[in-house]
Amino acid sequence: MLRLHYSPHTCALASHIALEQAGAAYEAVRVDFARNEQRAPEYLAVNPKGRVPALVTERGVLTETPAILAFVCQSHPEAKLAPLDDPFAFAQVQAFNSYLCSTVHVAHAHRMRGYRWVDDPAAIAAMQRKVPQSVGDCFALIERELLRGPWVMGERYGICDMYLFTLAQWLEADGVDLAKLPRVLEHRKRMVADPVVRRVIAQELA
Amino acid sequence: MLRLHYSPHTCALASHIALEQAGAAYEAVRVDFARNEQRAPEYLAVNPKGRVPALVTERGVLTETPAILAFVCQSHPEAKLAPLDDPFAFAQVQAFNSYLCSTVHVAHAHRMRGYRWVDDPAAIAAMQRKVPQSVGDCFALIERELLRGPWVMGERYGICDMYLFTLAQWLEADGVDLAKLPRVLEHRKRMVADPVVRRVIAQELA
Repeated sequence: MLRLHYSPHTCALASHIALEQAGAAYEAVRVDFARNEQRAPEYLAVNPKGRVPALVTERGVLTETPAILAFVCQSHPEAKLAPLDDPFAFAQVQAFNSYLCSTVHVAHAHRMRGYRWVDDPAAIAAMQRKVPQSVGDCFALIERELLRGPWVMGERYGICDMYLFTLAQWLEADGVDLAKLPRVLEHRKRMVADPVVRRVIAQELA
Repeated sequence: MLRLHYSPHTCALASHIALEQAGAAYEAVRVDFARNEQRAPEYLAVNPKGRVPALVTERGVLTETPAILAFVCQSHPEAKLAPLDDPFAFAQVQAFNSYLCSTVHVAHAHRMRGYRWVDDPAAIAAMQRKVPQSVGDCFALIERELLRGPWVMGERYGICDMYLFTLAQWLEADGVDLAKLPRVLEHRKRMVADPVVRRVIAQELA
């Protein structure tokens, strides 16, 4: 039995959707950020990074969304959530997910988690002011270059869609001009219509 | 023939070492950051992100270090640079590389590329002041938890080593206290003794 440590409104949603979509045997365990549980010794014993997601498997703990997503695909190949038999196509999936974790999510994090990179309150405020532009630039690239349509990788739905959808949850709060992102919004709408996605979101917010 | 677009002193070094170590048929093409070539239309046609590395293959262009590294492994399985036949072990490799791209490299980037996230010069200076601590914290976690020794994943050398080595090049300039990182430094020393690594560095700096 896999165990996913998650918190609502975080990037753990992508891994949660992947597990549900793959039909994995798992349970989801909420980490309460409001009570700072991610910094409690019990949780640091699971994930010393003090973040979510963390996926506990019988062989050990996995962290980092792109790694968990690829693991869910590889350990549930029958779900066909990534092109596992084609190294180039798989690398394209990985490149997209890497961009989301290293650039898009990072740009977003400057709104709520600026203390990671700066101590000065004025500098934190300055970071927050730029988030609409920096996140907007990332999504403009996705809109224009990366999202093939209807799904990220074209005709086949998969882990890139779950991850993009997760980060696209934050567009409004990040102050991004949605009018410039019709294809991203169309994708988000298509995702939220999926009963699996709705079930996972309902469970996280319950 | 693969074509790697790189610039010296960047994270492209990891992909460069991987190609050389795998015995891949490739050529390395320098992108001159001093002349801002990464923003020239010719280069943006290759990689609209305007960054390195970019790997041109016969099927298209791949970007993002973790994706390129895994692709080199999967397209050169005989080089045995990752545990391709074991989804859990492969996910551990991916988790390590994801951490490097999304957290370690990002912390470092606040020293030289602060303009990505802020416009105010005072805020950029405030970011720079925190880099020794934020990068130091990342490497403390690597030292304590992630680097198994002698190689990142234990007895088997692979793509995590190339990537860690690449980012560890920047420790001094980032102002990190090296005395706290004996195992990381030992790893770096072992890497730089490798003739393949020396050859790639010599080629990049030539």
